[in-house]
Amino acid sequence: MSSDKPFYIRKLAILGLGLIGGSLAKALKAQHVVGEVVALGHREASLKRGVELGVIDSYSLDLAEVVKDADVVVVATPTMIAEQMLVDVLQLVSEKTIVTDVASVKGNLLRAVNNNFSVAPANLVLAHPIAGSEKSGVDAAKADLFVAHRVILTPVSSTSAQALTTIRQMWQLAGADVIDMPVDEHDRVLAATSHLPHLLAYALVDALAGLPEQQDIFRFAAGGFRDFTRIAASDPQMWHDIVLANREALLDRLDQVTDRIAALRSQIAAGDGESIKACFTRAKTARETFGTILAEQQADIQKASNNSSISRE
Amino acid sequence: MSSDKPFYIRKLAILGLGLIGGSLAKALKAQHVVGEVVALGHREASLKRGVELGVIDSYSLDLAEVVKDADVVVVATPTMIAEQMLVDVLQLVSEKTIVTDVASVKGNLLRAVNNNFSVAPANLVLAHPIAGSEKSGVDAAKADLFVAHRVILTPVSSTSAQALTTIRQMWQLAGADVIDMPVDEHDRVLAATSHLPHLLAYALVDALAGLPEQQDIFRFAAGGFRDFTRIAASDPQMWHDIVLANREALLDRLDQVTDRIAALRSQIAAGDGESIKACFTRAKTARETFGTILAEQQADIQKASNNSSISRE
Repeated sequence: MSSDKPFYIRKLAILGLGLIGGSLAKALKAQHVVGEVVALGHREASLKRGVELGVIDSYSLDLAEVVKDADVVVVATPTMIAEQMLVDVLQLVSEKTIVTDVASVKGNLLRAVNNNFSVAPANLVLAHPIAGSEKSGVDAAKADLFVAHRVILTPVSSTSAQALTTIRQMWQLAGADVIDMPVDEHDRVLAATSHLPHLLAYALVDALAGLPEQQDIFRFAAGGFRDFTRIAASDPQMWHDIVLANREALLDRLDQVTDRIAALRSQIAAGDGESIKACFTRAKTARETFGTILAEQQADIQKASNNSSISRE
Repeated sequence: MSSDKPFYIRKLAILGLGLIGGSLAKALKAQHVVGEVVALGHREASLKRGVELGVIDSYSLDLAEVVKDADVVVVATPTMIAEQMLVDVLQLVSEKTIVTDVASVKGNLLRAVNNNFSVAPANLVLAHPIAGSEKSGVDAAKADLFVAHRVILTPVSSTSAQALTTIRQMWQLAGADVIDMPVDEHDRVLAATSHLPHLLAYALVDALAGLPEQQDIFRFAAGGFRDFTRIAASDPQMWHDIVLANREALLDRLDQVTDRIAALRSQIAAGDGESIKACFTRAKTARETFGTILAEQQADIQKASNNSSISRE
């Protein structure tokens, strides 16, 4: 692809056909900016279903065949598999094929690449679409999943400007709000806003579930508990992958929060009401600021969704 | 009141006229089971508003006058003030007046009473309606606030059966599902399901708000973070009161959760994926059980609300 022609992906390869990969394929098809979509997956039933639904055009269980001559390869497998898959793909394809991914952690992928190449290949653009659904699998794929959602790209110094532009345009055509961020910053921010809350929710619910009064606890819990623990129902395998992939940034953040919890513990034990109230007040102010930012984003999503040329399901 | 007559409260005194006290008065008026409702509060404007809205019939700033000859006195002040208020009321009224409350913690109230009386007065019934709203104040009061919500009564051995029956009937007439529980058990269960999640949410948001990437953190946070931190926007003064009032049970529970967090921390640092996945899986199973219980309760609330003789706002 050259930058003076209109955006077009002749062949798109999706490795791991689930909600994210499937939704991206649908979005690009809806925009008429993709020719052939070929997928690889470990469950042939999902791949067949993808063809039936028109999400992909064909599939194969042979990696070399799927990525051959592709303009863009999207690694959309679970986090732990993505490390090896990225390396395998980069070794198979020519520099004309742009390779990208959709995983929640970026540092582990960059390390895997750096361990296998003298310099990170110019045709690699790591990416993280911050979108999801309670549903999973190709049946849940929808063309407007990314509309007005953030996609973070984490280019490194060796990334080619053309590859970066292509992946940015691809996500913009899918309706996303695309920004760039260094790999380390991405992993620190996601550790704080996503990985750490999941860890705390899992720890709380697991600890309470082990108590003798477990039945009472769940019977008398109200709305606050419901909201606070909702994320503890997330997929254990996926979150196992994420916390291990991002362990360094996550443990840093965790230590900051456990320090704060330890301080509050001492203040409560000592009856230091002023310090407790000061902490709660700072948190309330910060949460209200976040609430305002979020409400603005929601309004943007609504507006973008109404104006989007991507057809809704 | 004697048990062979229909339920009727000739004079109801509400001490602290806000959402809870106001809603109880409205519910009982809607059921035509209350004569005169008199309130006391520290802000005369709220009391005047209560009269305007028809929630109460009159008010006074003089405690002795408000509780004089009342059948039932409801202490509906903030938690910390409730301790002294309960003692003052019990010293003013005769044993014919039943005294109750609506506070979120029960142990601190019982201790305050025990410090001032040789035995907990027979006419005292501690109670905790588990209901609330994002709004507060008498303007937000509504007759159906308690419909199908739980009210926990925590009688002690000296509590009179007649007083207990009256308070149970009062809440049932307001539409609530009333159950009894020992004081200690109440405080342990509420520490786990309500006080501890609030403490963790405040600690997390306060710790993140102090980081240099604060702006990014809030900008890239998604739905999970929103739900998890919603309770960190709760009233700092009210939660300051609650965590101090229930400090013993809360710190016990907190220590159990911080032990679990510390175990997870070691497992992540050691790359012990099996233990991490086992914890996440136990939590997911427990959270799904809770989700089922909660869905059943919501269905009950809907059904009870549809059948309720209490008029909706």
